[in-house]
Amino acid sequence: MASWLQIPKNSPFSLANIPFGIISSPKTTSRVAAVAIGDYALNLSAFASSGGFSQLPAIGSHLSVFSQPTLNAFAALGRPVHRQVREYIQKVFCADTPFPEILKDNEVLKQEVLVPLSDVANHVPMQIGDYTDFYAGLNHAFNVGVLFRGPENALQPNYKHLPVAYHSRASSVVASGTPIHRPNGQILANPAANPKVPTFAPCRRLDIELELAAFVSIPNDLGKPVSIDQAEDHIFGVVLMNDWSARDIQAWEYVPLGPFNAKNFATTITPWVVLLDALEPFRAEGLEPGNRESLLPYLREKRVANAYDIPLQVELTNAGGKPTIISNSNAKNLLYSFPQMLAHHTITGCNMNTGDLLGSGTISGKDSQTEGSMLEQTNGKNPIKLADGSERLFLEDGDTVILRGMAGTEGNYVGFGDCVGTILPAVKLEF
Amino acid sequence: MASWLQIPKNSPFSLANIPFGIISSPKTTSRVAAVAIGDYALNLSAFASSGGFSQLPAIGSHLSVFSQPTLNAFAALGRPVHRQVREYIQKVFCADTPFPEILKDNEVLKQEVLVPLSDVANHVPMQIGDYTDFYAGLNHAFNVGVLFRGPENALQPNYKHLPVAYHSRASSVVASGTPIHRPNGQILANPAANPKVPTFAPCRRLDIELELAAFVSIPNDLGKPVSIDQAEDHIFGVVLMNDWSARDIQAWEYVPLGPFNAKNFATTITPWVVLLDALEPFRAEGLEPGNRESLLPYLREKRVANAYDIPLQVELTNAGGKPTIISNSNAKNLLYSFPQMLAHHTITGCNMNTGDLLGSGTISGKDSQTEGSMLEQTNGKNPIKLADGSERLFLEDGDTVILRGMAGTEGNYVGFGDCVGTILPAVKLEF
Repeated sequence: MASWLQIPKNSPFSLANIPFGIISSPKTTSRVAAVAIGDYALNLSAFASSGGFSQLPAIGSHLSVFSQPTLNAFAALGRPVHRQVREYIQKVFCADTPFPEILKDNEVLKQEVLVPLSDVANHVPMQIGDYTDFYAGLNHAFNVGVLFRGPENALQPNYKHLPVAYHSRASSVVASGTPIHRPNGQILANPAANPKVPTFAPCRRLDIELELAAFVSIPNDLGKPVSIDQAEDHIFGVVLMNDWSARDIQAWEYVPLGPFNAKNFATTITPWVVLLDALEPFRAEGLEPGNRESLLPYLREKRVANAYDIPLQVELTNAGGKPTIISNSNAKNLLYSFPQMLAHHTITGCNMNTGDLLGSGTISGKDSQTEGSMLEQTNGKNPIKLADGSERLFLEDGDTVILRGMAGTEGNYVGFGDCVGTILPAVKLEF
Repeated sequence: MASWLQIPKNSPFSLANIPFGIISSPKTTSRVAAVAIGDYALNLSAFASSGGFSQLPAIGSHLSVFSQPTLNAFAALGRPVHRQVREYIQKVFCADTPFPEILKDNEVLKQEVLVPLSDVANHVPMQIGDYTDFYAGLNHAFNVGVLFRGPENALQPNYKHLPVAYHSRASSVVASGTPIHRPNGQILANPAANPKVPTFAPCRRLDIELELAAFVSIPNDLGKPVSIDQAEDHIFGVVLMNDWSARDIQAWEYVPLGPFNAKNFATTITPWVVLLDALEPFRAEGLEPGNRESLLPYLREKRVANAYDIPLQVELTNAGGKPTIISNSNAKNLLYSFPQMLAHHTITGCNMNTGDLLGSGTISGKDSQTEGSMLEQTNGKNPIKLADGSERLFLEDGDTVILRGMAGTEGNYVGFGDCVGTILPAVKLEF
């Protein structure tokens, strides 16, 4: 799809994408809705108030949603509206747009509504009520299971019957670029000692988790499950997510109720929500069919292909060093889809709100250097070699991690943009 | 403390209490702030707009907080303001009030602002961002541990070093009185079978958990822990909570990341937030001193007595039957205090928002019929006898559970009111 706007061929935000976000800028200090196109954000609030949507009268009564500081109101309008808006914007930007007067030939409006991404501050795009993190990355679950229980018992008996998940912490979800303080906490300096006595220290095994995450659009009432057939239409779109994890804090705290402080200090997401419609061309068979008969009927999807073919990568740059790609994975490595996660989440009658976030779990491949966490790649023993010769078992202060994910081909990429975080030293506390 | 208002001697809402909530009523359909006094709610929005706070000029600029649909804005004003407002209302209602013209002698205003509790609809009083459930009931953790691992290993090694917790589900926190649908889910009909194959069914082991829960008032920024000395001033107040639990769903799903669907279908709280100041007279030594040296310094409280002496009870009424008190416990059975929970929660830098909810964990005594859950009392084998001769291992459809908690003495009780839920049959789903 060619555009009259110059879009770099390697941009994750080609005309085939049109992801939605919340921006502010020196010109627009209040937060407003936008879409990313090439190197620009289109300010949808300004675009709407200048008549930009005049050729899409169907959404005329909803234009105020673009002037709000989150995408919740827009998301709550539902998938048919998101689809109309995305397709309309594609038409406005395509080289042979039927509406050149709207923007292509309107230099004044271009100046007003197209903001260089380099001038834009991104924000968490939704008001997140609850954030749930699943564990749908089969290879990750297996790899971690091997470390704890050996290959024979690596996967728990429930794993292939339901998408395992835990509730996680919504308040500390931050937008890409936010620096991450190394957490302090209780760790076992000597795990073999008896009795076990913890020490208070900065986390020494700070790790990443390469994930996708989906935002809920349409809410469901308490007591009213979302069926597997309807679930996809309750999902607004997808972002890339780094679920920072303090492995030593986790190892000590997690029995018997699961991870808590090990996961609550920060979770970084990309700020642009990629609609499921934009990902549809990359639908692919996952690790097992989505409608396999071993699944209970409430989890069986109509289609076999319930994954997406999205190459993912992890880049680590040490302070003063050079970038090193430490992992290449793919979103196909998920055993469960977001619709399956949502159907399972609500089967008890649990109510979801617009803006709720569902993490996929860590997405690892089967091979070396396809792992979505450092724990899997190093087991705390076998260091990763960085480009400048340094080595890493876990993250050190000053390290910058960038997750990337991009599907498609040159000129038509559908990607998430960079999911970036730099590790700051632990806060010094005095007692 | 005597009042000119007739307050029943057994009311949990004596003049010594003054808990805050959000009400609506046939007269006041929009949600507004209120306090409970005896058999009445004092509509604070109407009271404020009629000059009720004229003798408390310090809060004159904040009166709009009482017209909001949640208590978040009031809570965020901080403990000194909550204290002033509570003490002022006590003065307005006390028998020898210094301001009789405000309400005691103002029949017109009484008619307007005093709403019989029987006419009031209660609501979840805060906009809850995140809800965290702790596991601070030592006897509960021990009792459950015995069932799973025997008495020798009942408590995990971390238990006495940190308040174990998991993030739970905020969206399904409901106000007392809301009926509870029995959840559907995956359960193992035959746990001994190999391989383990789940069936889809209504929960068969539906249980209660008797807890207290605290609301956060003052937020903290990401990366800025709340110190143990400051933590109490970040807590708005306390409610009684029933953390409904699906034991069979939990047993199958919970490895390795903890409870999920077993806990996400509903959590019931009392709608009146009892301020910590109102509980202060009932401060008591808990199971172990709050400043014991075995605790890491970030968890050590200045005072030894870090619990509250609040008798708690569980009443079960079967459909068409009679009420049976099935358990008598006490809030003293908590190993950690809410300030300790908050200090631990934020030690990683985790940010808390106004309205975040911290559950204590199930509060069980050591003796028979002091357990805070049916699992502990019956172990799924030894039925509880009800007043009409029926028996219960777990809850049946039509059962009504009421939790109660009340400290103090006749005429001066400080209580939470009833925490009520009736079990509805599971929703019938077709696939």
